Amino acid sequence: MIPTISSLQKRDLNHVWHPCSQMKDYEDFPPIVIKSGKGIYLYDENGKQYIDAISSWWVNLFGHANERISTALANQAFQLEHVIFANFTHEPGIFLAEKLVEVTPDGLTKVFFADNGSSAIEVALKMSFQYHMQKNKPQKKRFLALTDAYHGETLGALSVGGVGLYNEVFQPLLLDTVRAQGPDCFRCPFNERPDSCCTQCMSYVEEKFKTHHEELTAIIIEPLIQAAAGMKMYPPTYLKKLKELCLQYDVHLIADEVAVGFGRTGTMFACEQAGITPDFMCLSKGLTGGYLPLSAVLTTDDVYDAFYDDYETMKAFLHSHSYTGNPLACRVALEVLHIFEDEHYIDEIHVKSTYMKELASKRFDHHPYVGEYRQTGMVGAIELVKNKETKEPFPSGERIGYKIYQIALKKGLLLRPLGNILYFMPPYVITKEEIKMVIDTTNEAIEEYFEHDHACMKVHEYE
Amino acid sequence: MIPTISSLQKRDLNHVWHPCSQMKDYEDFPPIVIKSGKGIYLYDENGKQYIDAISSWWVNLFGHANERISTALANQAFQLEHVIFANFTHEPGIFLAEKLVEVTPDGLTKVFFADNGSSAIEVALKMSFQYHMQKNKPQKKRFLALTDAYHGETLGALSVGGVGLYNEVFQPLLLDTVRAQGPDCFRCPFNERPDSCCTQCMSYVEEKFKTHHEELTAIIIEPLIQAAAGMKMYPPTYLKKLKELCLQYDVHLIADEVAVGFGRTGTMFACEQAGITPDFMCLSKGLTGGYLPLSAVLTTDDVYDAFYDDYETMKAFLHSHSYTGNPLACRVALEVLHIFEDEHYIDEIHVKSTYMKELASKRFDHHPYVGEYRQTGMVGAIELVKNKETKEPFPSGERIGYKIYQIALKKGLLLRPLGNILYFMPPYVITKEEIKMVIDTTNEAIEEYFEHDHACMKVHEYE
Ligand SMILES: Cc1ncc(COP(=O)(O)O)c(C=O)c1O
Ligand SMILES: Cc1ncc(COP(=O)(O)O)c(C=O)c1O
Repeated sequence: MIPTISSLQKRDLNHVWHPCSQMKDYEDFPPIVIKSGKGIYLYDENGKQYIDAISSWWVNLFGHANERISTALANQAFQLEHVIFANFTHEPGIFLAEKLVEVTPDGLTKVFFADNGSSAIEVALKMSFQYHMQKNKPQKKRFLALTDAYHGETLGALSVGGVGLYNEVFQPLLLDTVRAQGPDCFRCPFNERPDSCCTQCMSYVEEKFKTHHEELTAIIIEPLIQAAAGMKMYPPTYLKKLKELCLQYDVHLIADEVAVGFGRTGTMFACEQAGITPDFMCLSKGLTGGYLPLSAVLTTDDVYDAFYDDYETMKAFLHSHSYTGNPLACRVALEVLHIFEDEHYIDEIHVKSTYMKELASKRFDHHPYVGEYRQTGMVGAIELVKNKETKEPFPSGERIGYKIYQIALKKGLLLRPLGNILYFMPPYVITKEEIKMVIDTTNEAIEEYFEHDHACMKVHEYE
Repeated sequence: MIPTISSLQKRDLNHVWHPCSQMKDYEDFPPIVIKSGKGIYLYDENGKQYIDAISSWWVNLFGHANERISTALANQAFQLEHVIFANFTHEPGIFLAEKLVEVTPDGLTKVFFADNGSSAIEVALKMSFQYHMQKNKPQKKRFLALTDAYHGETLGALSVGGVGLYNEVFQPLLLDTVRAQGPDCFRCPFNERPDSCCTQCMSYVEEKFKTHHEELTAIIIEPLIQAAAGMKMYPPTYLKKLKELCLQYDVHLIADEVAVGFGRTGTMFACEQAGITPDFMCLSKGLTGGYLPLSAVLTTDDVYDAFYDDYETMKAFLHSHSYTGNPLACRVALEVLHIFEDEHYIDEIHVKSTYMKELASKRFDHHPYVGEYRQTGMVGAIELVKNKETKEPFPSGERIGYKIYQIALKKGLLLRPLGNILYFMPPYVITKEEIKMVIDTTNEAIEEYFEHDHACMKVHEYE
């Protein structure tokens, strides 16, 4: 069936190349034209309403077109939209840096701004490398990263990523990263459970430290949740032990909190749950509450001091982006941090996530095709499996997540699964009633798929 | 002399790590706190006014806190600040893509968005590489770039850059780029002049094409002006010939118009002056008139089609950034293009740049320390030399540009030279009177330096 296509959709397809998309898919499934947003809702050109249960790629925190944030942005636009950030500064940048230092783990005292998550990762990688060069350890030029890691799309960030889908084709352009097997709590090779294990899987990483520490400048990780890999979750003890290994082997720890920062895991930052301070913390996405591209790399005095010297020594960190420290984005980010504080959002998240976990577990734990419902803070994930006993996954060619996504969209719910994993990462302004709606609708979409599409597919298999 | 430092400056220095800066320099020269902007002017915390003659790192086009752009941004903020851009779209994104296709050279039909200039470069590099992989030319995996090129700071972009200052220390992390000597019209090795030469220097590039074409996927260049290298300018014929070589040797041409796009060179895009269509055109900076980080890569149907296939073939371009296609930034960029059209800015630029050239040439051509005053469109550059005859440069350790910069700032003029090159790249809203002011003040700052500081320095040399 050829879908009816609106004039705007047609115009889009004429010229727009969408991110992370096979554009041919859009023939059968043209892009939905969003006209406006309010709170957790998006409205398309026909007035149809969608619940944004994934916070538009994990960025939105306090709802779409948030009154308070939009007002702050508008005011800033009429005062100072931007100014070069080398030798110049401005209040939104200063205040934001102060606030970030205040809310992140102790010891992170310096803030370097960039424009997106990938660029923040590049900054951290480059800083760590240059640090060791300037500390007379030029042999430290490789990075250690985990399997199933995702850190962005620029070549440096992609090099440390471990999801084949994104980086396989680009292999000849990538850095030779040392790769260690990461935690895999759902299919634990030690048959342990994350709430009672002794992180035996740390041995994989320890092995790499032992063999490679002399050439390692940093290890980069996504604390508590490997998000793009399918919301793979692991316990804080893993981070705690990792930090110890880093100290022991003189290797920097880069915490990529681009996806998990700003309350997603239940605490302001995931590292808090392990009580650790990384050498670098990368922030983006929620940093502006889903409004504008902005990122920040927080680091320590020790790192800063290694670059602080007379100009002639050429020790400066000469990285920059044209829009570094953009006042509009900084002002928005500052407002986001004020909202967190003024409206006690960490407490809100606690209440809402507890409710979500209870309800979702009840609904999905016993579903025949649900291998596991897992949740950390406000991130909940349903891992669909073909066989609940063996945890055998559905073949990726079945595109089961993609099909359930389409069914859910018809029902006014935006899910966008990762392969066979459906997940919820809603804006924090969601109410309990709306959480229930999200879970119920997801359940209906799954049911519909297995009753209808999946059944049809099976019939086809036998034809 | 220890400068008096304001409370805001102190707070800045406590936590902000500024881009492209040796932070120790800030001890003697603390960052200027900008409170507001209007038109070509910036105002600091003491009410002091500065002319932003460099458009805040080449981004601003229509003045600071532009009424029309700020209004468009504010309205968009209350309607739809952002939405995921995979499978979703919105009017600002659609309309911007249409307009970009309309104003760029014929044949550029598809638009892929990213967040900053560096990310746009990464997109173009990755697309070109994947294109050739999918066209069964996997041996094409190296890039060709020019000496003195600058394309950004993420590792891919930095790899094609040729300015040692930025990438030398990171060499072990960079791609093995094929490097060809670029044009150097001021110190032409063939002793020609750019307005009458036959681009003999093309032979350097041709040589590399001959030797390496089988492994080359693309050549990347900054059309007409190598900006970060010190506003090095070269004639359009160079681009024309380069395009021919690309066709002859089956190598993509990536035009990095991040700095020169949107009227800077006198035409909407620099490539126009050579009458060429590159395979990729990277845009950022002026794209949003200096408001917000946004970039776009325009490409051809030929490239798009090489990725367009059934999902199962895995030919999709899976690059994305969380904020790809941000509606706020797209809406602002759209307004910028409307202003260009409504207010006939290309004509404005013609009139103003003619005036600027006349006046600046008169003022600087015969200055004993000015090797050359050169100008392309609204970009004017003064190359200071120690010896006007031999063109011997001042030693970089003298930091002559940096010192003149400080003198100019005291006089309320923001210049920020590149080494020994002072340049003007003002917002287009500048008036003739203001152009005169910029030139006069620059002249005064130069004079003051050579009368006082430079003289003192010479005395010190003899002490
Ligand atoms: C953990 C993590 N790091 C980095 C990034 C890259 O950020 P961006 O998409 O803004 O480049 C992402 C984006 O999804 C991410 O999830
Ligand atoms: C020609 C050119 N390309 C790319 C870039 C990188 O853009 P961004 O600073 O936004 O990363 C710049 C920035 O100065 C540039 O001048």
